[in-house]
Amino acid sequence: MNKKTTTLHEKKGVSQPETTSKLSAEKIKIKRNKHNSVDEFVSSILEGSIPFLSKAITLVESTNPRHQEKANEILERCLPHANNSIRIGITGVPGVGKSTFIETFGKRLTSQGKKVAVLAIDPSSSVNKGSILGDKTRMEELVTDKNAFIRPSPSGTSLGGVAQKTRESIILCEAAGFDTIIIETVGVGQSETVVHSMVDFFLLLKIAGAGDELQGIKRGIIEMADAIVINKADGGNEKNAGIAKVAFNSALHLYPPKESKWQPKVLTASALKNKGMTAIDQMIANYLSLTKQNAFFQQKRDQQNTFWLLSSIEQQLKDNFYQNPSIKKALSKEIKKLENSQTTPFSAAKRLLDIL
Amino acid sequence: MNKKTTTLHEKKGVSQPETTSKLSAEKIKIKRNKHNSVDEFVSSILEGSIPFLSKAITLVESTNPRHQEKANEILERCLPHANNSIRIGITGVPGVGKSTFIETFGKRLTSQGKKVAVLAIDPSSSVNKGSILGDKTRMEELVTDKNAFIRPSPSGTSLGGVAQKTRESIILCEAAGFDTIIIETVGVGQSETVVHSMVDFFLLLKIAGAGDELQGIKRGIIEMADAIVINKADGGNEKNAGIAKVAFNSALHLYPPKESKWQPKVLTASALKNKGMTAIDQMIANYLSLTKQNAFFQQKRDQQNTFWLLSSIEQQLKDNFYQNPSIKKALSKEIKKLENSQTTPFSAAKRLLDIL
Repeated sequence: MNKKTTTLHEKKGVSQPETTSKLSAEKIKIKRNKHNSVDEFVSSILEGSIPFLSKAITLVESTNPRHQEKANEILERCLPHANNSIRIGITGVPGVGKSTFIETFGKRLTSQGKKVAVLAIDPSSSVNKGSILGDKTRMEELVTDKNAFIRPSPSGTSLGGVAQKTRESIILCEAAGFDTIIIETVGVGQSETVVHSMVDFFLLLKIAGAGDELQGIKRGIIEMADAIVINKADGGNEKNAGIAKVAFNSALHLYPPKESKWQPKVLTASALKNKGMTAIDQMIANYLSLTKQNAFFQQKRDQQNTFWLLSSIEQQLKDNFYQNPSIKKALSKEIKKLENSQTTPFSAAKRLLDIL
Repeated sequence: MNKKTTTLHEKKGVSQPETTSKLSAEKIKIKRNKHNSVDEFVSSILEGSIPFLSKAITLVESTNPRHQEKANEILERCLPHANNSIRIGITGVPGVGKSTFIETFGKRLTSQGKKVAVLAIDPSSSVNKGSILGDKTRMEELVTDKNAFIRPSPSGTSLGGVAQKTRESIILCEAAGFDTIIIETVGVGQSETVVHSMVDFFLLLKIAGAGDELQGIKRGIIEMADAIVINKADGGNEKNAGIAKVAFNSALHLYPPKESKWQPKVLTASALKNKGMTAIDQMIANYLSLTKQNAFFQQKRDQQNTFWLLSSIEQQLKDNFYQNPSIKKALSKEIKKLENSQTTPFSAAKRLLDIL
């Protein structure tokens, strides 16, 4: 089991004495029988067991083929009980207050009786051995909330691999009764595109006065956003946040209308002071109401499924090809020939493909 | 042989009586023996024969496997004689004066004794049966210049396929002695990325006062540009062109320095009035001098070769997979299962991959 997660749930056990005995019993069940059956996994997850949910995610994240096979069985059995959630992607560069925002946003939801799972995609975490959510102290209250489940980014060398694990974890969280899934990512590289392809609503966090209002912003991200929230609109920063709001609003109007018919919104908020958060809840409710009415909600999920099916196939085709020892050897020879102008890229490709 | 090209060379024959007899003789050689040998092709191309160059490009563009095989042989034999050129990509949306620019730019080069080939990448040409260079009357003088060779965009349904043909044609043109290869593309879609991946120098044409100075511009293109030329700086439009120049200059400075160590330039010009064109020639000469000195020039070509090798492999892997009849059938079934929440994208992918 993931060490960090274990610590997390031990902590939860301590801070919530009423659930200690149940959790302990579940853990003993897990410990006594190292090989819990798929049936045990599925029924426990459907009952909302956090230890079984965690262990199932660990199976999903494992590179061991036997674990993966078991994970697939669990996933397929959980599927009919999944999908009843709203999946929200939250991105923003370091410093915009993502953790505080998710903490405040999440606690508001749990106080309304909702169950919130926070997952992360951070492909860099495998490099620095950390992760966005690794430092849980940044979400102190949400961590101890029995209706919240926080899981750090899976490690992995490829963004695609990391993303696949997170995407499968969404299904498990939903089957365990979590009705709001937050996928956090840091606003660098390609990870936003990947998060965008697995969420219903994509929220971009910004701050005013950091000199990055529009300059240097990746247009692609603005284009993906269903909402831009200018955070840290507090402590005398309200005016700048208002100016940034106007700038983003005009930037958003440069884009053609979205397929969802949703006009992206720009809001200001202070997650720290719990200001402007109600408007965000309301906005998301409006989005859901619109896209469920016009059928875009399910249509987008279907498109996302097809996208993941195809990208998973294509990744695997490439992996199978490039990891083949004969190909590896021949490929480096062909690259040398290319450098010496002895062949064209297309003839070289043809010879390599003929090997298989 | 491509009809348009034939017409073109017939026209050349007429307007340049001194070469008529040689051209006619070559044509007879081609006509008499429908199956010219690879040897004949290679030796004629190396002698600079335009009819053989044209016919070889037609083989490259053919979808007939026997033609492709012959084309590959010719390409491999021509390769040692290729590479001695500068490859310039020129892009810009319709209306910026691309044809006039290429006409003026090309004629200046041929008047200096250079040989200029103009190729195009326009994946849309297969749809509207036209092509950027289809209307040759737009380059009236260059068309009749014996040191210029103009070839319309190959037709094709996929950008990758169209691009591969153009890229192979570059090799043939170089072997035929063309020292400047211009690749034209229209500034829409992904074709600029593809052109960028096969040229040494990438030039973006713009006009001032069209309301598109910075708004709505695809950032990716600006990032790729080695130079932005604001064309049509004439007839009272000079001031606006100057303003646009300042705007683009500051936009360019937002980007990190290029691997080439080249600082992209912004120039104003009027191709119609032949104004500002010397500065463009000089700029390209400076770029070449810098990148040949710091070895970036060859390094970039090597990277481009590897890029084309890998993308060609990956395209083929996908084609082979998706065109398999069993896969086609199973894929539509799996997509239905996905829509009914009966499977996950990753399990579906696994089952599909297991078919082969």
